[in-house]
Amino acid sequence: MILVKLGGSVITDKGKLRSFRKLTCERLAKELWRARDSLTIVHGAGSFGHIRAKEHGLHKGFKRKSQLGHVAAVQRDVRELNLKVLEALIDSGIRAVSIPPAAAATFRGGAVASFNPDAFRNMTQLGLSPVSFGDVVPDEAMGFSICSGDLMMEALAKEFEPELVVFCADVDGVFDRDPKRARSARLIPDFGRPSLKLLGRSDAQHADVTGSIRGKLERMLAIAQHCEKCMIVNGNVPGRLERAISGKEVISTVVLPG
Amino acid sequence: MILVKLGGSVITDKGKLRSFRKLTCERLAKELWRARDSLTIVHGAGSFGHIRAKEHGLHKGFKRKSQLGHVAAVQRDVRELNLKVLEALIDSGIRAVSIPPAAAATFRGGAVASFNPDAFRNMTQLGLSPVSFGDVVPDEAMGFSICSGDLMMEALAKEFEPELVVFCADVDGVFDRDPKRARSARLIPDFGRPSLKLLGRSDAQHADVTGSIRGKLERMLAIAQHCEKCMIVNGNVPGRLERAISGKEVISTVVLPG
Repeated sequence: MILVKLGGSVITDKGKLRSFRKLTCERLAKELWRARDSLTIVHGAGSFGHIRAKEHGLHKGFKRKSQLGHVAAVQRDVRELNLKVLEALIDSGIRAVSIPPAAAATFRGGAVASFNPDAFRNMTQLGLSPVSFGDVVPDEAMGFSICSGDLMMEALAKEFEPELVVFCADVDGVFDRDPKRARSARLIPDFGRPSLKLLGRSDAQHADVTGSIRGKLERMLAIAQHCEKCMIVNGNVPGRLERAISGKEVISTVVLPG
Repeated sequence: MILVKLGGSVITDKGKLRSFRKLTCERLAKELWRARDSLTIVHGAGSFGHIRAKEHGLHKGFKRKSQLGHVAAVQRDVRELNLKVLEALIDSGIRAVSIPPAAAATFRGGAVASFNPDAFRNMTQLGLSPVSFGDVVPDEAMGFSICSGDLMMEALAKEFEPELVVFCADVDGVFDRDPKRARSARLIPDFGRPSLKLLGRSDAQHADVTGSIRGKLERMLAIAQHCEKCMIVNGNVPGRLERAISGKEVISTVVLPG
């Protein structure tokens, strides 16, 4: 199995509420189709989730009744994005079927409490490609919480031990500084636990509702323990995703288990 | 709990592929909102599901690889309809959240093999209104099969024993003959198991991929055993649904347990 994350910052414009990057998503879908048939895909919520979720503190769980309308609205928005992604995938020839996180997992305190892989396994065995996503989910301790796409990636990697995990980001990989701010930032081609120290402090703390960049990297380090190869590629550069899942040389960061 | 089925023949034009009856659905959403807050809703797939499912024999389960693209396409279409229904409900003030059948149940031979009510219970306890729907689902015996909205209604009724179950149809209730063909058809105000014999043979056999009308009525008779009151109302007549869930007198068929 190849497990691919389509980052929310790649398939949406993260600064603009509910703006889908259709052409990018369609290109990535074609790259996925050309490279390989047996895929499990997870996508982030991007601007269909984070903006409203942050505005109403949904990542902090249930605090007041007035949040509930926003829980419903964010869930709806995220499903709209999921439908757009499904459409792009199906149009490119991938037999994509949606599996929301709450269809396979229960959550407690923002973490996965239990994970039932049957839906993913059944779909994959039939020859279908499951597609999951970041979502607002019921939470046994918090009422509701956010399940990030990365959290689903970790649950799937643990369960299925894929040969390859690819994170599609809006940068070439992990840099020693924020590449969008510092021209001198250098790509780290092999990222292990010790590399966490190389990261500038401030750069590790840009937060969205699913946590800091440091938190994301810690999760990738954990995921790398459950697959043969884990890498980050730039989904905005045509061909990178396709090269990565075809096993060809490509500009990327390989995440080392640690 | 009040459990409401929005029939696929009411919220879609069943003869025309993927045609949503937006105004009707918006009106029904307003009726639901005005009448009561604590709701669980199931909708049929209508022309977003049946037409393609029938064309490619999806109700018969996995027969050949070429069906799989259609499984993905029908799933996608049904999610598009679900999103439209969610939108109408949320716009009317109902805090609706989607729960696909495969998120709560497993299936074997076209029947429910196991049902986990947690997602529905958690959402309801928070004050959200779960919305499920008819769908193509993984099936342990058939590869995939169709879970009708009515099958979900039965699973939910068994589990939660609602005080009221309302089926929103495109006719006033159950008639002794097909009311769309025979002007002399008479409404059966109280329908019990013995009433099955009153139905004209031919009228009980118009089939879609979820079975004959007789099959649907048998399911309603089963559902009536798990609730205080089970009724069928005409969703095309403004106010009927609202009157039904407000406990007011309304033209309908009451389905008796049996």
